[in-house]
Amino acid sequence: MKITSKRINFKTRGETDIIDITGEVTNAIKASEIRNGIVTIFVPGATGAVTTIEYEPGLLKDLPAMLERIAPKEIEYEHEKRWHDGNGHSHVRASLLGPSITIPFEDGRLTLGTWQQIVFIELDNKSRSREVVLQIMGE
Amino acid sequence: MKITSKRINFKTRGETDIIDITGEVTNAIKASEIRNGIVTIFVPGATGAVTTIEYEPGLLKDLPAMLERIAPKEIEYEHEKRWHDGNGHSHVRASLLGPSITIPFEDGRLTLGTWQQIVFIELDNKSRSREVVLQIMGE
Amino acid sequence: MKITSKRINFKTRGETDIIDITGEVTNAIKASEIRNGIVTIFVPGATGAVTTIEYEPGLLKDLPAMLERIAPKEIEYEHEKRWHDGNGHSHVRASLLGPSITIPFEDGRLTLGTWQQIVFIELDNKSRSREVVLQIMGE
Repeated sequence: MKITSKRINFKTRGETDIIDITGEVTNAIKASEIRNGIVTIFVPGATGAVTTIEYEPGLLKDLPAMLERIAPKEIEYEHEKRWHDGNGHSHVRASLLGPSITIPFEDGRLTLGTWQQIVFIELDNKSRSREVVLQIMGE
Repeated sequence: MKITSKRINFKTRGETDIIDITGEVTNAIKASEIRNGIVTIFVPGATGAVTTIEYEPGLLKDLPAMLERIAPKEIEYEHEKRWHDGNGHSHVRASLLGPSITIPFEDGRLTLGTWQQIVFIELDNKSRSREVVLQIMGE
Repeated sequence: MKITSKRINFKTRGETDIIDITGEVTNAIKASEIRNGIVTIFVPGATGAVTTIEYEPGLLKDLPAMLERIAPKEIEYEHEKRWHDGNGHSHVRASLLGPSITIPFEDGRLTLGTWQQIVFIELDNKSRSREVVLQIMGE
């Protein structure tokens, strides 16, 4: 049994930018030389999230549209009254989507479906430099 | 420390069918002979999800009703314009609920609450044959 | 490779009380003497959830406000017709937020962001005594 840890870094283009990180996760598993196990993908930060989606241009608009229904940008947030950074909606969206996902892999391959990619979602109201933690455990 | 992997297969009856998979997960843990550890339950696919719920008939209607408020079936989705398969709402619901859950077990028993079951939720707009990955790790 | 398990216990003050459990998780990792690995935080129960958030008074109101939009307390729930305990909204909110989160740690330190805390969210409609499972795995 072995553990390895890796950070991936990228810059987002602004609010609700959705980044496909499947390739980076795949490469990290290969580099680890662990054949069977789990990878935990974790966002250190309160205004980003990870999930899976079919990475195609339509859904990259549909997912943000759903988030706008759940936590509209233009309503009043208590967070704003204190911090004045205009991102109360970003925080509650991130808590709902969640900062973490765990995915099994077998024989060095992620068990993803054919039309399923791993994505980071920028929920903050501006472009950010982001770091995501990958922890790989197995044998 | 040991890892084992197992697939469970079943057919769903259509959109928002909710399947109790607690028994299959319990059996997989027993069969693994791992006493203490975690099980990661993962949906390989972009229109299904896993979570826990009290599995009783009322909630099996209340959960879909909530999803219909968040991502209504009848509004316009960009996904639809390109793919014409009528399941844009399915995809965004699946990304929000998430494809993965990790649950600890101790002495061979899942740490679930008394009224808490593990469920697969069919979010696609038709009956599907589904496969769910269980990866069990521990000692 | 080593596994240890711990339960943390606390009393919530009522519906949508949000409890910062970061300190307890940090202490459990220290006590485990595991340096690198993952901690799985799991709620055994169908009306509580775990996630991360910037723990400040504004967001402790904004998150419940979002849940009220998604699953309002005052609409009709099928769960209620059978069980009459007034918490149909609690159950569907809990299934959506999810009972489980997995977080990597390195050199004995959680990989959380600076403004990111681990929280338990009471979704039931009353004060409860709660138990949360921490399972720590690593080396």
